[in-house]
Amino acid sequence: MKYLVTGGYGFVGSHLVERLVRDGHEVTALDNLSNGQHVNLDAVRRDITSYLSNVEQIQSAFFNTKFDGIFHLATAPRSSSLKDPMRDIETNCKGMIAVLELAKVHGAKVAFTSNSGIYGSVSNNGSINENSINDPTTPYDADKFVSEYYCKIYHNMYGVRSTIVRFATVYGERQVVNEKLNWRPLVATFVKNVVNGEEVVVNGDGEQTRDLIYVADAVHGVLKAMNSDVDNADVFLISTNVETSVNKVLQHVQNIAALKAKVRHSEPLKGDIRKMKYDYSKAKHRLGFEPTHSVYEGIKRLVEYAAKRPLG
Amino acid sequence: MKYLVTGGYGFVGSHLVERLVRDGHEVTALDNLSNGQHVNLDAVRRDITSYLSNVEQIQSAFFNTKFDGIFHLATAPRSSSLKDPMRDIETNCKGMIAVLELAKVHGAKVAFTSNSGIYGSVSNNGSINENSINDPTTPYDADKFVSEYYCKIYHNMYGVRSTIVRFATVYGERQVVNEKLNWRPLVATFVKNVVNGEEVVVNGDGEQTRDLIYVADAVHGVLKAMNSDVDNADVFLISTNVETSVNKVLQHVQNIAALKAKVRHSEPLKGDIRKMKYDYSKAKHRLGFEPTHSVYEGIKRLVEYAAKRPLG
Repeated sequence: MKYLVTGGYGFVGSHLVERLVRDGHEVTALDNLSNGQHVNLDAVRRDITSYLSNVEQIQSAFFNTKFDGIFHLATAPRSSSLKDPMRDIETNCKGMIAVLELAKVHGAKVAFTSNSGIYGSVSNNGSINENSINDPTTPYDADKFVSEYYCKIYHNMYGVRSTIVRFATVYGERQVVNEKLNWRPLVATFVKNVVNGEEVVVNGDGEQTRDLIYVADAVHGVLKAMNSDVDNADVFLISTNVETSVNKVLQHVQNIAALKAKVRHSEPLKGDIRKMKYDYSKAKHRLGFEPTHSVYEGIKRLVEYAAKRPLG
Repeated sequence: MKYLVTGGYGFVGSHLVERLVRDGHEVTALDNLSNGQHVNLDAVRRDITSYLSNVEQIQSAFFNTKFDGIFHLATAPRSSSLKDPMRDIETNCKGMIAVLELAKVHGAKVAFTSNSGIYGSVSNNGSINENSINDPTTPYDADKFVSEYYCKIYHNMYGVRSTIVRFATVYGERQVVNEKLNWRPLVATFVKNVVNGEEVVVNGDGEQTRDLIYVADAVHGVLKAMNSDVDNADVFLISTNVETSVNKVLQHVQNIAALKAKVRHSEPLKGDIRKMKYDYSKAKHRLGFEPTHSVYEGIKRLVEYAAKRPLG
């Protein structure tokens, strides 16, 4: 099959591109390298076609291939959306429309990686599922949410096929810390800090939790979404249904690296999520998705990786 | 008080500006004149300050006045949003962020005119209220919806005060037909066609209904919203709770103008709303809003107005 991956040089994108190449597909990667890294696709660059572009500027005329499917992963980061809400709209809202317009012309199916932060925090101890109440706390959340509506509208109006996944917090090899973009993903930042002997900053008391999904499991989920017969912009949580506190992540990293970190507690982040635990039953039953990596195992891989290549 | 009205030269905007001037306020109007008309504020131009700008480009530095309140009416039209979804995002999403950023700096309260089309159609015979399920059928609907979330986010993050109104279908003097923008508001188009002896095109069977609110009632509603103590981006329907079919509107226009129209039925519009009847109880109880003009009375005023000034 012929696939376009937006954000193909990014963290999740590059893993997906490698997997698609390995499975024998013809792959085109599109990225503006604002957060993606050229080095991420070193292993497969000769097997793919690449375009350097902002996703909101993609047009059918760029490509001499007709795509069967578009994986839409390109995004402006959540962490900088309050600081630069206009950029978030450019990349996340306009980017989604550009992808849907391309899919309309190509007759391609879209797999869109939305956002699970859309739910905000849960106050009870239960899991969140796809029907939980939406409570966007940043422009990023709101823009991902409206992008899901664009998918629905393009399906109803033009028959554009799409499946939407909402990842839990993805971590793994190639996730970088980008201070310039205010992009400090939890696991990568802690691994970087601990391995480099830097001070670790924990926002608030550190008892806030995340549903952490290893990157290979996330890739598995979005492939299941693309290959399913779901085409009406239906939404699926790709998660583990396991809560891990920020403090617990730090403890794992220190244990695995056999290093003791200097820790400072800062003010809690505005709009931060307190509890994150997402039920993936719908994806399991409808897409056949199931995660297979434990948090400990995933962090172990990342610590080993960080010894070979710096994380930021 | 000092007020900014975005879209101040537009149909509803100009009525609002006149009313604010009449009530003794200091008014600044901002408009890009894409659909607004310079002539609309002829009566009060010497009493106000005007800026020609796209709303998404407004910045605090423009103004030497500190606003107490911002009425955010500037919008890209629903009718062209499927044809040009990128422009819709520019004006409607970015425009909202620009207004909220300005409000943050000025400490101003925002009254935002959102969209009631967000609800899509109702299949039963009941009224829609603020808690009805959202079903955006065009990018416009989705972009207005996300703008409401921006208001909530800016309130939670920065304490920006706002009240959101969702107008039913507004009609009245100064509403124009703009073929270039694909802007053909129902009542104005029918009045124009009938008065000029043009063919009247009815989409589908004409039995689709609208909740038609006269412009003075809409202005009354948004003023009530601004003057209320609601500041948390809560949403209010400004409507009449009365359904009028497209065919009935045409009948009123013909009766009032004492003219018989040549009618052609076209295909139903994609994404058109079938039934529209909005309950304004919440606005009545919380804001003290109540409409006072009947559809017949409003159309009569518009027919008389059209005799003096062409509608498009």
